[in-house]
Amino acid sequence: MDKFPITQKTEITRLPKRGVYEKEQIYSILDEALFCTLAYVRDNQPFQIPTGFVRIDNKIYVHGSVGSFYMRELRDKKHPVCISATLMDGLVLARSAFHHSVNYRSVVIFGEPELVENKEELYTALERFTEKLCPGRWADVRKPTDGEWKNTMVLSFDIKEASAKVRTGGPKDDEEDYTMDVWAGVVPFKIKRLEPIADELLKDGVKLPKYLC
Amino acid sequence: MDKFPITQKTEITRLPKRGVYEKEQIYSILDEALFCTLAYVRDNQPFQIPTGFVRIDNKIYVHGSVGSFYMRELRDKKHPVCISATLMDGLVLARSAFHHSVNYRSVVIFGEPELVENKEELYTALERFTEKLCPGRWADVRKPTDGEWKNTMVLSFDIKEASAKVRTGGPKDDEEDYTMDVWAGVVPFKIKRLEPIADELLKDGVKLPKYLC
Repeated sequence: MDKFPITQKTEITRLPKRGVYEKEQIYSILDEALFCTLAYVRDNQPFQIPTGFVRIDNKIYVHGSVGSFYMRELRDKKHPVCISATLMDGLVLARSAFHHSVNYRSVVIFGEPELVENKEELYTALERFTEKLCPGRWADVRKPTDGEWKNTMVLSFDIKEASAKVRTGGPKDDEEDYTMDVWAGVVPFKIKRLEPIADELLKDGVKLPKYLC
Repeated sequence: MDKFPITQKTEITRLPKRGVYEKEQIYSILDEALFCTLAYVRDNQPFQIPTGFVRIDNKIYVHGSVGSFYMRELRDKKHPVCISATLMDGLVLARSAFHHSVNYRSVVIFGEPELVENKEELYTALERFTEKLCPGRWADVRKPTDGEWKNTMVLSFDIKEASAKVRTGGPKDDEEDYTMDVWAGVVPFKIKRLEPIADELLKDGVKLPKYLC
């Protein structure tokens, strides 16, 4: 299976058995995550931006207004960035406080920003981003005008270095604690999409589309 | 209402009406978030660590093993950090692709690590962290032994500078798009806790506690 190289920046040194370097598994975490956080450095001070994103092939795409301070800064200064995305899958309840844990899948990526100027790549990035969050939506809506495209900046980050850290399964307790009268197990988490709420200004007669039912 | 000062680092410059500086609202986002990402800088390279945390008063507490590389590094070098926590509340579906958005509440904090050495503060941090993720749990489980305490490091971060960015409500479309036959509205997200799954090695006769029902 195709893997990212293990580098000084991406090696999982704490609990190395949780380390994952397989591209396929890292991509699937990125494809499920609703947002990422993008960290960069200015004057030795770390900054973070939570933002939506989409992965296409080996690249992360983020977009924003051409007026966005951080987008302009990344575009102009090409700061090295660290991008992370995390899925919280559940609470792991052990018999001892010490062995409590969480099941999670998190990815950490290192790369540099690149301004996307190719029109087809721009279009694909925004279409795929929309379809990631809401499959079926792109075909249904008014597409961007020339003016809207001019107001939109897209940055790409080739995934140069990446690793994931993953915990699954039940609690691991100390041998002598298994006889305790304490419930132990996992409480899974799931992000649910609730009933859609129509806009107050929705045009009369417009029905909820099938892809939202 | 008590507010954090607006500083060069925390001012929301893009869509300033989404900026929130009220301590109460920032605290409530932190108290609802299941994890944060902690960013710091080494040799001008940003790093990010996704981690559980608890807020108590004006401090963020994170914990880990005394063997954790990043915890030791933060303890020893007192790197300035940026901490962020984000709640994704829903998709905002507009009639035009351009006006699609998400409802979210995100907090960004700046501070520095401090090693927690006071035993009462240590105990409170871990008790409150456990109770944040699973109310009722702490009273039920075996408390840490001296050896387990020795293996646990807790760092605190006084929230020196912080702001939140919050979007709520429905889509805002261009005037001329309101007559389009396109469904528009909000799809809310909610993190649900599913049915608890008992550990395979659960002692016979131990029932699911009330706080998990």
